[in-house]
Amino acid sequence: MPSEFQKKSSEFAKKCFDDIREMSKDGQGVSRQGYSPVETQVLEYFKKIGNELNLEISTDKAGNVWMTIPGKNRNLPALVSGSHVDSVPQGGNYDGLAGVVAALTVARWMREINYVPERDYTVLMMRMEESSWFGKCYVGSLGMTGQLTEQDLALKHRSTGKTLKETIKACGFNPDDLTTGVPVVDLAKMAAFIELHIEQGPTLDSSDTRVGIVTGIRGNFRHKTIKCIGETAHSGAVDKQFRHDAVLAMAELAYKMDCLWDDWLKDGKDLVFTIGVVHTAATSAIAIVPGEVTFCCDIRSLHRETLEQFHALLLQQAEEIGKKRGVKFEFDKTIISEPLAIHENLMNHLDKSAREAGLNVRKLPSGAGHDSVIFGNLGIPAAMIFVANQDGSHNPHEKMKLEDFIQGADALWNAVKNFPIEGIK
Amino acid sequence: MPSEFQKKSSEFAKKCFDDIREMSKDGQGVSRQGYSPVETQVLEYFKKIGNELNLEISTDKAGNVWMTIPGKNRNLPALVSGSHVDSVPQGGNYDGLAGVVAALTVARWMREINYVPERDYTVLMMRMEESSWFGKCYVGSLGMTGQLTEQDLALKHRSTGKTLKETIKACGFNPDDLTTGVPVVDLAKMAAFIELHIEQGPTLDSSDTRVGIVTGIRGNFRHKTIKCIGETAHSGAVDKQFRHDAVLAMAELAYKMDCLWDDWLKDGKDLVFTIGVVHTAATSAIAIVPGEVTFCCDIRSLHRETLEQFHALLLQQAEEIGKKRGVKFEFDKTIISEPLAIHENLMNHLDKSAREAGLNVRKLPSGAGHDSVIFGNLGIPAAMIFVANQDGSHNPHEKMKLEDFIQGADALWNAVKNFPIEGIK
Repeated sequence: MPSEFQKKSSEFAKKCFDDIREMSKDGQGVSRQGYSPVETQVLEYFKKIGNELNLEISTDKAGNVWMTIPGKNRNLPALVSGSHVDSVPQGGNYDGLAGVVAALTVARWMREINYVPERDYTVLMMRMEESSWFGKCYVGSLGMTGQLTEQDLALKHRSTGKTLKETIKACGFNPDDLTTGVPVVDLAKMAAFIELHIEQGPTLDSSDTRVGIVTGIRGNFRHKTIKCIGETAHSGAVDKQFRHDAVLAMAELAYKMDCLWDDWLKDGKDLVFTIGVVHTAATSAIAIVPGEVTFCCDIRSLHRETLEQFHALLLQQAEEIGKKRGVKFEFDKTIISEPLAIHENLMNHLDKSAREAGLNVRKLPSGAGHDSVIFGNLGIPAAMIFVANQDGSHNPHEKMKLEDFIQGADALWNAVKNFPIEGIK
Repeated sequence: MPSEFQKKSSEFAKKCFDDIREMSKDGQGVSRQGYSPVETQVLEYFKKIGNELNLEISTDKAGNVWMTIPGKNRNLPALVSGSHVDSVPQGGNYDGLAGVVAALTVARWMREINYVPERDYTVLMMRMEESSWFGKCYVGSLGMTGQLTEQDLALKHRSTGKTLKETIKACGFNPDDLTTGVPVVDLAKMAAFIELHIEQGPTLDSSDTRVGIVTGIRGNFRHKTIKCIGETAHSGAVDKQFRHDAVLAMAELAYKMDCLWDDWLKDGKDLVFTIGVVHTAATSAIAIVPGEVTFCCDIRSLHRETLEQFHALLLQQAEEIGKKRGVKFEFDKTIISEPLAIHENLMNHLDKSAREAGLNVRKLPSGAGHDSVIFGNLGIPAAMIFVANQDGSHNPHEKMKLEDFIQGADALWNAVKNFPIEGIK
């Protein structure tokens, strides 16, 4: 049985999604580049709704928009919910946007039922979370917390070549405010951050439970370039014992890691392993034993220990296979993104309030990273609600069912409504 | 102890190699494109020597040059020896050229010691054997035997775009003569063809035996394009059980075939297996589970049965792995080059005459293809002598030691001298 909230909020949410899709259609899917006119236009759209709902609206120096329903006790730190409004190029409409619409739907519901919360309730709409255009993710939340660097600002747009610095400036903000190490907002005024997001994977969608409570956000150990160096040779004239075939060495390494991954999953470890890109050298040919192959790798887990250990295993296997086959694996610098241990008490609060409202939820990890990582790693209690979605994300086929979304928003509403006066530590 | 032949022929051979390297240097290695001015210049150089040695010189309609020492009985079919004068771009000096210089060194020796053979002895210098420029190998010998096709002639030069037809015409020959199915020379006048060639692999060079007698020429089963189609997904958000990773499927297939290859070698099969080129899709990225990978494969063996069976195993493994992983392997048309069963009695004659002359030889297969395949498959007894060489072939680093070469030429000389009047059937 859908709750009153669900029955009376669907239409509002649907209109938001439809209007914003219309604003950002690109012929394939939607494109909402961070710090671009279309992103600003989306924020303006929401500010208009915020005005209609009589919310207090402010924009921080990083360009993120905060819209607040004043609580009974304005001295209490606010409960904040939201996500990012940007998308990847030719992406789907829901990645990021769902979290903003959910937070706003809860605010609208408060106004509809004349509900005044104990503490301020703030809808936070962030800019540029996606890395597709400049290669850097979390730009809006990193900027807000003063954590961007000059190197970040020097990154170039993948097609126009314009720097991130120029792009932020052109949007009306001063990039130099965002690299000071000092947040541009008072983080002490945030009691907690709750982010709703589509799952981006098939776990919820392949079950009857449509709403998830996130247990943690996977970090990763990455190598952008691993080179296997063997020796080119004639593919007919050189017998096996004389070969140093880079592709077969890479294949053995990939297959062995794949088998080890199976073992680790059986042992209950949280782990994903991906070799997304593989290329032999430009001079490779059908009649030449390949002397070089380049590939990347992405290891993700909720647990730093698992990341470290599986990464060490990769290096060890590469060493052994290299010795055996007379090839050499060269690894570039390991790029590390820390996993986020979701705030356990806040997670349990989300879970409990959803269940008490009769919602069907399950706990699951987040494989992708989210702005919540930035808040969580600064010590602000952060937690996430997932909504089942179809066809992944970051592509034009991404889908989400309104009835699933509104259940997720209902979980958020219940978590907000039941948020304790003393906060959650 | 080097024979008289070896002692007195080295200088001549060295001068030929040095002069021709000088003619065809390209800054890296040598470049002698088939049906190009430099190839013609090399042939003119040899014709000048042929004239000095008072050889009968003719050029066939495909542009190959025949230089003959008349035998005592001119009614007997000739014993022919030679190879090709062209090279790959930025190749080495000896691939092909060694066989021409060896055949000519034997002719020169006959003149030096006033030796008149029983039958005509002919040095055959062929054009364009290498496929690098137009993608077609054996063009000189195929043209001579009327076996080129209109499709072959329509092939375009890899950098200039000029067709093979235009190229042959510009060289002064009529391409239409070469596609009739009828040889432009009388093949009945060839008693046998013996080709000396560098090994192009390390087998001889890693042993004390510097000269090989070829037991067969590997044929191959090839796929230029095998596509593995899986499903792209988020590299963090999608767990293993939901993935259809094209790269890990390809890796399993490659690794399994590699292991099976080991087994087959242990069973005494002649086999090489190469995946020379691998590329993930243009849209592949570090954070995306790869949905597509393209690769090629080259299976070679002396035995058609082995080729067929290992190829069948590849298809079967691909099918099984595809089913298990929810991916699909798509194979393009199998390109088949038949192996050549070297003429056994001619091979034994080469082996016996070399051993009786005190030369140290061993039998070994040829992994690469050679013009000998064209003659052998038309029923002309054909056999090959290999000379140890360093650093493979088809590259500027290719090397060959003069003392090894001259032993190989000595084996040729002994085979010519001892060739029976009644021929070898």
